Amino acid sequence: MNRIITISREFGSGGRTIGRLTAKKLGIPCYDAEIIQKIAAESGYAESYLKEDSEDTPGGWLGAVLANRQAGPTNQDLIWQIQCKVILDLAEKSPCVIVGRCADYVLKDKEDCLTVFIHASMEKRAERIVKEYGERPESPEQRLKDKDKRRAAYHRFYTDMKWGHAQNYDICLNSGRLGIDKCVDILTKLY
Amino acid sequence: MNRIITISREFGSGGRTIGRLTAKKLGIPCYDAEIIQKIAAESGYAESYLKEDSEDTPGGWLGAVLANRQAGPTNQDLIWQIQCKVILDLAEKSPCVIVGRCADYVLKDKEDCLTVFIHASMEKRAERIVKEYGERPESPEQRLKDKDKRRAAYHRFYTDMKWGHAQNYDICLNSGRLGIDKCVDILTKLY
Repeated sequence: MNRIITISREFGSGGRTIGRLTAKKLGIPCYDAEIIQKIAAESGYAESYLKEDSEDTPGGWLGAVLANRQAGPTNQDLIWQIQCKVILDLAEKSPCVIVGRCADYVLKDKEDCLTVFIHASMEKRAERIVKEYGERPESPEQRLKDKDKRRAAYHRFYTDMKWGHAQNYDICLNSGRLGIDKCVDILTKLY
Repeated sequence: MNRIITISREFGSGGRTIGRLTAKKLGIPCYDAEIIQKIAAESGYAESYLKEDSEDTPGGWLGAVLANRQAGPTNQDLIWQIQCKVILDLAEKSPCVIVGRCADYVLKDKEDCLTVFIHASMEKRAERIVKEYGERPESPEQRLKDKDKRRAAYHRFYTDMKWGHAQNYDICLNSGRLGIDKCVDILTKLY
């Protein structure tokens, strides 16, 4: 049976980096942007439209989660279905690390899946996003608050789980306090 | 500077056992019942009144957290103050593990304090409390739900933090999925 690690993370917590480094240490693939490419290929939507992490689409598809559905499913609903399929396919294929995209929820029935949540204080994340994505007109705190809200709403809408509740995960790590390397160590050893 | 581990835990998650085993491995004391003895000595209340973990006082002092305070502070408020003092004293004295009693909150300004939350699924915890404390007229699920509610209300009232939110802790572990031994290993290595 395949062994999968899913990483959910707060924006700016370094969760993606932790996923990549853990996968590298374990010699297994890490899927992140690749999932978006696959969803793009299957759905016909542009990758830039599907991307949410880079702040390129503030209030974009992630923000529209609560849109009116009287006229039927939204773009997001269709993307959600394709996303579930892509994640299930990847998990079926081989051991891997999957970052974001509610993979924890999509794979919740797989026994051999380690679900991880990475978080850090507002301060540490603010530092990190400025370093990673540069300055913006809004303060880093405002950028984080916006993103946190949208990510939590999206996750809640599709999974009915509460974002950031320890009970939803096998392990939650504060990367700001423990450091990226220790988080990678712990996950590698747990695998 | 002293190094402290605080362990908050869901009832039946084995958090206390994890605390004891971690302390043993590290060769430092683990405070749990000892805190109650100290509070009893300083407050004059009986230990049985102060104890909450054994289910001996269902709905007892833990349940009274939302009592009316028009006539001034409640017994709980006085106990809370003594409890804070006892925990701060212990943390000052030497490195240790402290289980429960909102020690994470009381010591939140200490840089060198690792805050841990241990949880497990309802199923795993039900199994454990029957093994640990025996059968009761109520179902184990009902016992857990009652305890969870009271513990969360108590923690929330005195700390204003949300119980079980990953963001409040350095590390959260699902002892039902990872097993007691792996949890002890991780904490020992992080220390």
